[in-house]
Amino acid sequence: MFDSSLPQTIAVVGGTGPQGSGLAYRLARAGHPVVIGSRDPHRAAARAAELSALPGVPAPIRGTSNEEAVAEAGIVILAVPYEGHAELVRALAAGLAGALVVSCVNPLGFDRNGPYGLPVPAGSAAEEAAGIVPDAVVTGAFHHLAAPLLLDPDADLSHEDVLVCGDDATARQRVMALATDVTGGRGVDAGRLRMARQLEPLTAVLISVNKRYRTRSGVALTGLPQPLLTSVPVKE
Amino acid sequence: MFDSSLPQTIAVVGGTGPQGSGLAYRLARAGHPVVIGSRDPHRAAARAAELSALPGVPAPIRGTSNEEAVAEAGIVILAVPYEGHAELVRALAAGLAGALVVSCVNPLGFDRNGPYGLPVPAGSAAEEAAGIVPDAVVTGAFHHLAAPLLLDPDADLSHEDVLVCGDDATARQRVMALATDVTGGRGVDAGRLRMARQLEPLTAVLISVNKRYRTRSGVALTGLPQPLLTSVPVKE
Repeated sequence: MFDSSLPQTIAVVGGTGPQGSGLAYRLARAGHPVVIGSRDPHRAAARAAELSALPGVPAPIRGTSNEEAVAEAGIVILAVPYEGHAELVRALAAGLAGALVVSCVNPLGFDRNGPYGLPVPAGSAAEEAAGIVPDAVVTGAFHHLAAPLLLDPDADLSHEDVLVCGDDATARQRVMALATDVTGGRGVDAGRLRMARQLEPLTAVLISVNKRYRTRSGVALTGLPQPLLTSVPVKE
Repeated sequence: MFDSSLPQTIAVVGGTGPQGSGLAYRLARAGHPVVIGSRDPHRAAARAAELSALPGVPAPIRGTSNEEAVAEAGIVILAVPYEGHAELVRALAAGLAGALVVSCVNPLGFDRNGPYGLPVPAGSAAEEAAGIVPDAVVTGAFHHLAAPLLLDPDADLSHEDVLVCGDDATARQRVMALATDVTGGRGVDAGRLRMARQLEPLTAVLISVNKRYRTRSGVALTGLPQPLLTSVPVKE
């Protein structure tokens, strides 16, 4: 099981994509050792070099295959398209066992009426991963941060809330801390892993709003205490 | 078809419940003629009298049966539990035909793990209503406003965004204006009616957050222009 007290390498599976790259950059800038994975290790290495050259990265981001990235990391961010997700998680299962997994996978489809949430047999991509790798501690987070903003060194994301779900309270707290490292703002405890059923396809709403207002929208919650207190343990 | 240029009576079906009562109060306070409906017309009349006595209501809210309320209104807010929703909409179908319908129905279940979104065969309660009454113009909105805050005359809701979905752009704009009347803040064009699949069960996340932070949370979007411009027509 992951030890939340130690600094740990964070692997970003799908780290050459916009969302994965953006998270890798922000986490590296906050001081985390980061390795990005890709099916093509050469592509991962090239992207890692580009990201390492962005302002404020204290130590180079490395790039390698998804398998090798996962093997050396205690925390694994899944930032891959939903298409092929289950197959990829199965292929990485041995390395993911025992890791803290953060799924930011958004199962979305697009048709002539715009974006929509894809039906997911397990309920959500995060639950699908948890079902495939029961020995991993799976959480869901970072679904709603716009990749171009993550990759913009000057973009202030501190007003965006990162909603974190998972069935392990310690893991949620750990990911909430990572959220603060990424945005400078809040991670919010959204509860059980099955809340990913709502968090993942909410991205379709944001994309719809983005088209209508020509912007990059994000999510914030109202009514939370300022500063945000540690969430209260609840029986469930 | 509803005429968006005329002041119109707003019927709130399920208007004796907390959410319906709260919306009725806020809309009446903003100057709309409001009638609340209930299965029990006497109960509706009693609740209407209570609401009319709240601060700032310029003209009495009336209360009657759901059927009579719908019959005299051009705008109908559905604020009922999901249980029995389809049967109720079928029973009211004749009156709903031609009306602008605003569904704020949240199909939620609760078990020992807390709240969760119920599976809805039509995708969402709003789409279910639209399927039953194809001659109504159905929108979804007001899913995320906490009823106790709606009913609190002093509660400032202007920082909460009301996400509005529907397949008729004119209807969405009309409901966005109603949202501003309710909260003093923004209505946000969230796009097609099927976005209700995301908006409705998002309430489960808010309830989960409320339990953890002992608060009444709501939704706001980041990244929208201030002041909010009219949304851009999009092809979809």
